[in-house]
Amino acid sequence: MSTLLNGIAASNGYAIAKAYRLIEPDLSVSKQTIESPEEEASRFQKAVETSKSELQIIRDKAEKDLGADKAAIFDAHLLVVSDPELLGPIEEKIKSESINAEFALKDTADMFVAMFEQMDNEYMRERAADIRDVTKRILSHLLGVQIPNPNMIQEEVVIVAEDLTPSDTAQLNREYVRGFTTDVGGRTSHSAIMARSMEIPAVVGTKEATSTIQNGDMVIVDGLNGEVHINPTPELIQKYKEQAAAHELQKAEWSKLVNEKTVSADGHHVELAANIGTPKDLEGVVNNGGEGIGLYRTEFLYMGRDQLPTEDEQFEAYKAVLEGMEGKPVVVRTLDIGGDKELPYLNLPKEMNPFLGFRAIRLCLEEQDIFRTQLRALLRASKSGNLKIMFPMIATLGEFRQAKEILEEEKQKLVAEGTQVSDQIEVGIMVEIPSTAVMADTFAKEVDFFSIGTNDLIQYTMAADRMNERVSYLYQPYNPAILRLVKMVIVAAHKQGKWAGMCGEMAGDETAIPVLLGLGLDEFSMSATSILKARSLISKLSKADMESLAESVLAMDTNEAVREAVNKAIK
Amino acid sequence: MSTLLNGIAASNGYAIAKAYRLIEPDLSVSKQTIESPEEEASRFQKAVETSKSELQIIRDKAEKDLGADKAAIFDAHLLVVSDPELLGPIEEKIKSESINAEFALKDTADMFVAMFEQMDNEYMRERAADIRDVTKRILSHLLGVQIPNPNMIQEEVVIVAEDLTPSDTAQLNREYVRGFTTDVGGRTSHSAIMARSMEIPAVVGTKEATSTIQNGDMVIVDGLNGEVHINPTPELIQKYKEQAAAHELQKAEWSKLVNEKTVSADGHHVELAANIGTPKDLEGVVNNGGEGIGLYRTEFLYMGRDQLPTEDEQFEAYKAVLEGMEGKPVVVRTLDIGGDKELPYLNLPKEMNPFLGFRAIRLCLEEQDIFRTQLRALLRASKSGNLKIMFPMIATLGEFRQAKEILEEEKQKLVAEGTQVSDQIEVGIMVEIPSTAVMADTFAKEVDFFSIGTNDLIQYTMAADRMNERVSYLYQPYNPAILRLVKMVIVAAHKQGKWAGMCGEMAGDETAIPVLLGLGLDEFSMSATSILKARSLISKLSKADMESLAESVLAMDTNEAVREAVNKAIK
Repeated sequence: MSTLLNGIAASNGYAIAKAYRLIEPDLSVSKQTIESPEEEASRFQKAVETSKSELQIIRDKAEKDLGADKAAIFDAHLLVVSDPELLGPIEEKIKSESINAEFALKDTADMFVAMFEQMDNEYMRERAADIRDVTKRILSHLLGVQIPNPNMIQEEVVIVAEDLTPSDTAQLNREYVRGFTTDVGGRTSHSAIMARSMEIPAVVGTKEATSTIQNGDMVIVDGLNGEVHINPTPELIQKYKEQAAAHELQKAEWSKLVNEKTVSADGHHVELAANIGTPKDLEGVVNNGGEGIGLYRTEFLYMGRDQLPTEDEQFEAYKAVLEGMEGKPVVVRTLDIGGDKELPYLNLPKEMNPFLGFRAIRLCLEEQDIFRTQLRALLRASKSGNLKIMFPMIATLGEFRQAKEILEEEKQKLVAEGTQVSDQIEVGIMVEIPSTAVMADTFAKEVDFFSIGTNDLIQYTMAADRMNERVSYLYQPYNPAILRLVKMVIVAAHKQGKWAGMCGEMAGDETAIPVLLGLGLDEFSMSATSILKARSLISKLSKADMESLAESVLAMDTNEAVREAVNKAIK
Repeated sequence: MSTLLNGIAASNGYAIAKAYRLIEPDLSVSKQTIESPEEEASRFQKAVETSKSELQIIRDKAEKDLGADKAAIFDAHLLVVSDPELLGPIEEKIKSESINAEFALKDTADMFVAMFEQMDNEYMRERAADIRDVTKRILSHLLGVQIPNPNMIQEEVVIVAEDLTPSDTAQLNREYVRGFTTDVGGRTSHSAIMARSMEIPAVVGTKEATSTIQNGDMVIVDGLNGEVHINPTPELIQKYKEQAAAHELQKAEWSKLVNEKTVSADGHHVELAANIGTPKDLEGVVNNGGEGIGLYRTEFLYMGRDQLPTEDEQFEAYKAVLEGMEGKPVVVRTLDIGGDKELPYLNLPKEMNPFLGFRAIRLCLEEQDIFRTQLRALLRASKSGNLKIMFPMIATLGEFRQAKEILEEEKQKLVAEGTQVSDQIEVGIMVEIPSTAVMADTFAKEVDFFSIGTNDLIQYTMAADRMNERVSYLYQPYNPAILRLVKMVIVAAHKQGKWAGMCGEMAGDETAIPVLLGLGLDEFSMSATSILKARSLISKLSKADMESLAESVLAMDTNEAVREAVNKAIK
């Protein structure tokens, strides 16, 4: 019988495939006396041989897919798995002490690892890591458990994991990985955002995917409704296959809009832009018909390394994005670090409430060296395209004024040094703090644009950590409180002849888009893969009708009431 | 020369007295060989004698001030300090090993402590604690350092400490302690709130009070301006004495208002109520002319114990407060636990951002047993006075409806059981989450009253942890964003014929009061000791003028601009 898990719909689409558990198995061992040491030794030899041929396959595949460089690590593993100086003592130990192969292996390997690790020699310390990896592999065969290796997947699968880190997600092979489901996470967790950008259907936060789904179970991931079906009936599979086919048809239909403008049924134009993290994301933006970059998150330049990026490194990245967009607008957000995004090399003190702490512009106004370096890199790149600079986490006009002044200072310095700097750069702010939404009328006189960051705006307006599952019921994008704040921002911008965009999750949300169109939002920035669907949706909506709809939902009292009203109106 | 420390003005008034450092001294010892064991032994005997006479004095004072009960603990200490079975081995050790008295004492005492602690006998384990205390005392005399003992203070002092816990603060002797200053803390930290309720002038968050001020230094604590002067010049002392005298005169003037209503210069009445934590605070409310209790924080009933308070315990406390207020309004806030207030026995999971987490009403709606017990106790006490029930941390109308429904259910049950329950109980909410302020018009149709909790409202609206010193510049009560939210709440309440109060720090703030009066706030709830001053201030203000002032500051763009404008207007 089919089992149903409910989770959070994290990335659109349907996946139907066998489960592949991406979970570290339990490799713990205990010492046991055995009756027949000879048999135990031959069991060990067999596990070694299996490991050897497995490593040979992985090595060859790595060479073919990833190049000789990446294959070299497995060459090193193959040397270890054939090394008599390691294998000899283990067999000896099994026979002389009549103990189990697992313990003899672990005990001997641990000794070698400790020995190599103490050596004052980089090469030898790397050998310790090799021995550790090979030991795990042989152990898994002795214990009859499987070490997951997503690189070796040769058939279509649905990945099942407790959680996926951004790097786990990035390594998933698009050819075979049809979808994924996790125990934890929410719609705005990193794995969910990555899944959408890679167009892999995903359901997160199921709480029990890993405890319910076994390797090889047939699984349906319904990324539209947040459902995971385990071992579904043939009828259910058939039904989902039809839905998936219809979904593909619809995507084909949407793809015809790739070079179109975004225009409502009654002729009102809005801009659909994309959120990106690195220059590599540009391809997806172009393929999905993005009319600009509404949010370039520059944090990735600073992450996964052990020191700050230089001005030149940043300059190259910004230039690449500006040139790649060929004159279309590119909104670059200055460093938004702190909160859930840490940079270990900055050694920031631990905070009791990091989301309410020393982050983003607060940190940049204090650590001005970091901020000025980024601004200089941006200014130097400004002639390569249509640059707009955006400051994150602005809470007061004083902060904006100070940030703008620093930008001006760096601009003057560069000009004095003879560097070409564009004089068309718009300077705007993220509106993600309630005070800034409430004060939008005063900000609108001084900024060039607003971009509403709904993930944080919702979290602060509802006083609920969006990562905390115990209060996730308060993450309410359709709560009229949020919609009213959004309206304040748009009205304030228009009154001063400025534009207002949105770069949070909400900008790509089907239920939110009709209301946002009605409220007069000028720019919607979302995952690139959501753009065509949004363009299609907007083309069917009349802005005039949506204005009435927006007016009516603003007077409603709960998130649920608004959702129902919108869904009824656009059905 | 006089040295000036700047800190945060935490409690009004001036203190001029000698410094008393409330800091645990360093009592660490190391083993040393000494030349003359006989001299060392007599140095030890002298330290014992000094400790003995000191303990005798403390004991007698404790008996006189606190009763024989409390004195008994020092009787036990006196036995220890005279016990040859402890002292003999120490002297023996000094002489036979030629080692220093500190080490011989510590080593021998540690052995006895370990021995007694292992015994399966409560009495013996208490002896271990006695030995530890006496050892510390003798050690302090050997090392020539002082163990602070605020009970022994016999002259007027200013307490200097790194921080003061609520229990430290509660133990301060009002007779001699003129004021205090600490390194850490802010205006809303517990020590600051306690200081105001005890009417002790205080400056907190000076960062360097303990590193700058020595025992016996003359110190001026200026609790109005947040200044601490160390070893001031005679001229400065004279100036402050005059100011202090003027302040006393003013307080005497204010005290004439104790039985008056609070009426503005143009005849508009508002209610000045007090925030309390326990029934013991009632005396201060009555002495300071409180017209009601605007916030009874029930958390203290749950804290400092190892299990939940029973329904009866709670009933007694609520009844005492309601009776003590003799029919005046008493707003009881239901349990607001979580965030920075933990209850260890609830075993709540650690959260990444506790201020945005599972706290207050969120917890109560989940852990309904706790909530229902409190509501039953409140309902049972409701006939004893004018009870109003207030739910904290309401973010959505759904939460309020659910809480109200639970209250109704418990009421029905009690009535069915034959218990008398008042049918006049108003049910309202704290407005401390931005969404609730923005949606106040929809809430106003269903609640009986609002009370604006500014400490949290400011923290969430500015997205800045009010306990985090790195972002303390964002704690901006006069930011027009806050004032606009306050206005929304008041306007919404009045439109539905409801009342709006405020129970955050801001309600007692001189700069905020004129604006709040102008915005039409009905009830101001503050530290009892701020009431008379506020009443005096309001009596001099014209509500009509303050309405214009409020209108003009709502259009300003920064916290600083508003502060200047208000201070100029009321000067």
